[in-house]
Amino acid sequence: MNPGTATLVIEAVTPQIDGGRHPIKRAEGEDVVVEADILKDGHDIISAVLKWRRAGDPAWNETPMTPLADDRWRGVLSVTAVGCYEYTIEAWGDGFLSWRDEVVKKVDGGLAALASEALEGARILRAAAARAFLVKEDALRAASAGDAATLEAFAAALEIAEPARLKEIATDPCLEGLMRFHADRSLATTYGPTLAIRVDRRAAAFAAWYEFFPRSAEGRADRGSTFRDCIGRIDDAREMGFDVIYFPPIHPIGETNRKGRNNAAACEPGEPGVPYAIGNFRQGVNGGGHKDVAPELGTLADFDWLVGETRARGMEVALDFAINCSPDHPYVSAHPDWFFQRPDGTIKYAENPPKKYEDVYPLNFHCADWRNLWAEMRDVLLFWAGHGVRTFRVDNPHTKPVAFWEWVIAEVQAQFPDAIFLSEAFTRPKMMRALAKAGFTQSYTYFTWRTGKDELIEYFEELAQGEMADYFRGNLFTNTPDILPEHLQTGGRPAFIVRAVLAATLSPIYGIYSGFELCEATPVREGREEYLDSEKYQFRSRDWNAPGNIKDVITALNRARRDQRALQEYRNLRFHPSDNPAVLFYSKMTAARDSIVLVAVNLDPHSFQSAWLAVPITDFGSNPAETYEVRDLLTGERFLWQGARNFVALDPRTRPAHVLEVRRLQSRELGVNIYA
Amino acid sequence: MNPGTATLVIEAVTPQIDGGRHPIKRAEGEDVVVEADILKDGHDIISAVLKWRRAGDPAWNETPMTPLADDRWRGVLSVTAVGCYEYTIEAWGDGFLSWRDEVVKKVDGGLAALASEALEGARILRAAAARAFLVKEDALRAASAGDAATLEAFAAALEIAEPARLKEIATDPCLEGLMRFHADRSLATTYGPTLAIRVDRRAAAFAAWYEFFPRSAEGRADRGSTFRDCIGRIDDAREMGFDVIYFPPIHPIGETNRKGRNNAAACEPGEPGVPYAIGNFRQGVNGGGHKDVAPELGTLADFDWLVGETRARGMEVALDFAINCSPDHPYVSAHPDWFFQRPDGTIKYAENPPKKYEDVYPLNFHCADWRNLWAEMRDVLLFWAGHGVRTFRVDNPHTKPVAFWEWVIAEVQAQFPDAIFLSEAFTRPKMMRALAKAGFTQSYTYFTWRTGKDELIEYFEELAQGEMADYFRGNLFTNTPDILPEHLQTGGRPAFIVRAVLAATLSPIYGIYSGFELCEATPVREGREEYLDSEKYQFRSRDWNAPGNIKDVITALNRARRDQRALQEYRNLRFHPSDNPAVLFYSKMTAARDSIVLVAVNLDPHSFQSAWLAVPITDFGSNPAETYEVRDLLTGERFLWQGARNFVALDPRTRPAHVLEVRRLQSRELGVNIYA
Repeated sequence: MNPGTATLVIEAVTPQIDGGRHPIKRAEGEDVVVEADILKDGHDIISAVLKWRRAGDPAWNETPMTPLADDRWRGVLSVTAVGCYEYTIEAWGDGFLSWRDEVVKKVDGGLAALASEALEGARILRAAAARAFLVKEDALRAASAGDAATLEAFAAALEIAEPARLKEIATDPCLEGLMRFHADRSLATTYGPTLAIRVDRRAAAFAAWYEFFPRSAEGRADRGSTFRDCIGRIDDAREMGFDVIYFPPIHPIGETNRKGRNNAAACEPGEPGVPYAIGNFRQGVNGGGHKDVAPELGTLADFDWLVGETRARGMEVALDFAINCSPDHPYVSAHPDWFFQRPDGTIKYAENPPKKYEDVYPLNFHCADWRNLWAEMRDVLLFWAGHGVRTFRVDNPHTKPVAFWEWVIAEVQAQFPDAIFLSEAFTRPKMMRALAKAGFTQSYTYFTWRTGKDELIEYFEELAQGEMADYFRGNLFTNTPDILPEHLQTGGRPAFIVRAVLAATLSPIYGIYSGFELCEATPVREGREEYLDSEKYQFRSRDWNAPGNIKDVITALNRARRDQRALQEYRNLRFHPSDNPAVLFYSKMTAARDSIVLVAVNLDPHSFQSAWLAVPITDFGSNPAETYEVRDLLTGERFLWQGARNFVALDPRTRPAHVLEVRRLQSRELGVNIYA
Repeated sequence: MNPGTATLVIEAVTPQIDGGRHPIKRAEGEDVVVEADILKDGHDIISAVLKWRRAGDPAWNETPMTPLADDRWRGVLSVTAVGCYEYTIEAWGDGFLSWRDEVVKKVDGGLAALASEALEGARILRAAAARAFLVKEDALRAASAGDAATLEAFAAALEIAEPARLKEIATDPCLEGLMRFHADRSLATTYGPTLAIRVDRRAAAFAAWYEFFPRSAEGRADRGSTFRDCIGRIDDAREMGFDVIYFPPIHPIGETNRKGRNNAAACEPGEPGVPYAIGNFRQGVNGGGHKDVAPELGTLADFDWLVGETRARGMEVALDFAINCSPDHPYVSAHPDWFFQRPDGTIKYAENPPKKYEDVYPLNFHCADWRNLWAEMRDVLLFWAGHGVRTFRVDNPHTKPVAFWEWVIAEVQAQFPDAIFLSEAFTRPKMMRALAKAGFTQSYTYFTWRTGKDELIEYFEELAQGEMADYFRGNLFTNTPDILPEHLQTGGRPAFIVRAVLAATLSPIYGIYSGFELCEATPVREGREEYLDSEKYQFRSRDWNAPGNIKDVITALNRARRDQRALQEYRNLRFHPSDNPAVLFYSKMTAARDSIVLVAVNLDPHSFQSAWLAVPITDFGSNPAETYEVRDLLTGERFLWQGARNFVALDPRTRPAHVLEVRRLQSRELGVNIYA
């Protein structure tokens, strides 16, 4: 930077992740509210613009920024296409506005000898006219020539203007518009680092996930289902309103050291094995590794068919990307140097001493041949993207280098900008954040274990209201094949309903692992959160419409999410007081206030709880004493509420939660008691 | 960065100003406590070092960092020389420590077949031996050869070790030391931006300033004093314990549009003029501008003599750097293009419409010839630095470009690393901070107007405990030639004592403008904070030992500051509860706890106030019920206090404040009632 032209200080630009090291995230159509401290010496009036463009575009879009208090400025941009955007800020001491300000003060102060000021103004206008005259872009040339002529006319009038007329001309709105367009920006300062935005498609920010094992599609204990058998399950998920069908790994399963039912160290003949022990060189058409499907599920063509059928239903298939290799994976013989080796040259299995995982060989991402290993991982993802998969749930990314994810996600999104990556890292908070910063589109969260009112509020204020909301999108899973949390084991059907309501309304992205809708709740043994007879290890018999299921509640929740735009946003979550520590109360509202949802949840699945709520009625733009209708989106019930303080009664057996749409009443409606 | 070798994430490094855009500040001998989030995939054990060096040195110093909770690490470095330092962090997955951890877990877990682990360990040790063998530095070569041999011996022992012996060798402290020294850092990750530290001399962080107009030295109304007449005033300031003698501008004063007494638009013949209207081409030996002294003060030789005399007294002279030009400044004829010009070619005087300042011409720092203008400003500073001046108080820096200050301070400090710059910017908070970030060593503050307990606590917690403390050193002035704050006009002598105590103890750098010690309190008129008959415009008669002065209090305060190292630090200020809203209570303590000072101040100069204080006794490392002596550093009184809750009675007429040294009593002392 040339110090002689660094006329302003622009700093503390938000949003910004680690000084611009990482992009912020948005979905198509979302806004970015950009703020900055903009400072200039002396008393010049500052003009500032927010500039943005798609990465690679030569020209910037611009929108004016407006000053707030305390040297803070704000501007808003919208991103409309999937891909990468850039933004920055340009500001300058505005000679015209400063001159105008001085002239107005002098005229208002009664000074009469302002001929010099008039001439100075004329000079400023003529310089602008000269700039307008030089505009070269075809689309603007004719208009600019007109601008130049108008500016010259204003200048000529200024030169002979008496004080009153001088002020009149100086404050002419037409002149202001022309001078804004043809401002002298020769001494403008542009904010140093260009900041980046990763723009994802809508489903990155708003989707309901349904996870099931394809081999469990029919719920038969005697044999596994195939891809062709999955349509029933997918249609059922569609009926419930899900968008994403997520499959655990579908690849050939290793035979060496294959685990048996309930994670037995050895399996019986005929047991199907764990899909996460990936690779069997005896199977498949592409070597039996990550680019193959397990033959017991069908062929690649069957998979392609299923992807198409799912897409035809307005849904999509998400695949698991699990970088685990069974001892039978083709990499083991083709690339033994990609693995960790013992001094005797044998390959190390996974360990967490003294525990051993002899069915899995971890890869060494920093081996000498890392370039080929990383490229192969990328090619696996590109292979499935080529088969129509655009969403990858990544297994345990925190056990591979963060730099690898940053690289591979960028590589895949360069070819498939609509690719979505969900980080399944249940690990330390900063590592979870680091993975999101590195590029993961969505992330698993601690929601699965957060049950208390205070901890839910604290955690979701961090997720949705702090800096994290700019790069970390929490995808709330109620359960997973590995996690049947304790509160589901003990809370019965009400607990499942409560967790579904929380997951579906606290974040616009959430998911369930199949069986949740059936309220399956038996752990492998007391004190553990693994499922008994987990389908990770075996075939399972299931009635997908078993009595006591909560499919109707889930269906209503997903319908509410589609109908209420407020539930499709992330950063609009606000918690509000309830006077009962077992009742959580929060709202979501669109900026336009055309969708307002209130959620009150009884966190205690065992007891009736009631509460007085503090409804944020003034946030709705309403009169504090106004009467309004709230409609329960789960039951259809309607209530007339008034003002901020309102009462809820939440019986876990009948109605553990309210999800309420707020409808402001027209005054004429109030004249009729529609609830009589 | 090569993604294949980016093995860790290092982020959220503190201290750090705006992503490393600006250096942090320290004084010689101070510590820098550096923290960072350091993350690695998987379960490897991490080693990390804090690295630092003087800018330009080829080699880094290193000190190990230690893990705190939540992936946070900490290391401490000390800076010992004036100038610029750099620091960064290097971290790696430590193969040896990870192997050792695995081996210990396996041995403790009862695993017996560990031959492969033993061989692996031997391989790790032999690789370290090979690295040690290759050390080329002369100073280390012999020792490293020894290390290599020892490592080889450990390796040989490992290869044949049974499990118990394996653990014994793996955890040998001697081996740990060798492996730390010869660690495998081939896959280490270094934090991206190198961060900078500006290290100033001690006086930048600890000094008491005394400001007087040389022409007022003798306090005569009939004529001005000269440099040669200043010794008496300087000796008096020395008696009071001041370190820095700060002179307002000493340059030739313009005659055109010279102001008269009390800022009259016109002056009478013989009036001395305002020293801030700098420049008179009729005077001086260097053109009559910023490189000359006003002839009425003496010659440059006289000034040099005074600088020497001051230095001989263990003090130094600070000059005002005021970039104001009178219409008679030599720049006006030599460089009219450096000023703002009207359309008719005349030069614009300063204005704040409708007010006019016809005796001052502002410079245009972005004029076409800005390079020469900026260079001339630098040369003015270098000129005075060449005359022994190393401290500059800069007048109104916020009306010149921040980029200019960043440039010029770096230029001057490149030649005079001990140069100190004090920013006199009483302006908006973010501009004050921006100037400090840009390089100002010290800054004026809002202290001058902060009088209430809550506002003092809020402001000084921001200054001394937040991020600002890393770059903004508040120099607390009780008053200035332009500012006689309202509380001094109305509070009488107690208010002067209270403000002196606060200034001298809230920050290690503070100053008074002469007359303060005499409790001068008459404003030019009611409701204004300018002084009546200000010596900015006229000669003034003064008795520098007038009755009612507070020179004894100031002397005691400056003595306390010298004796108590706690008062020489900035970031150690902590406020503590007192139960009276008029009583402010705070402490300062060294990290070694060898200097502990408590200050209790009655902020109400009109009424007696008492308070129960909450003494932070556990911070002192004391037993909560311990008895200890506190000694008043202003009066010499001693008190025996016990535990946290203690009482103070503060009468503004006799003792408006306590400045208490805490002395922990030896147990034997407690046996004797020394206060009987």
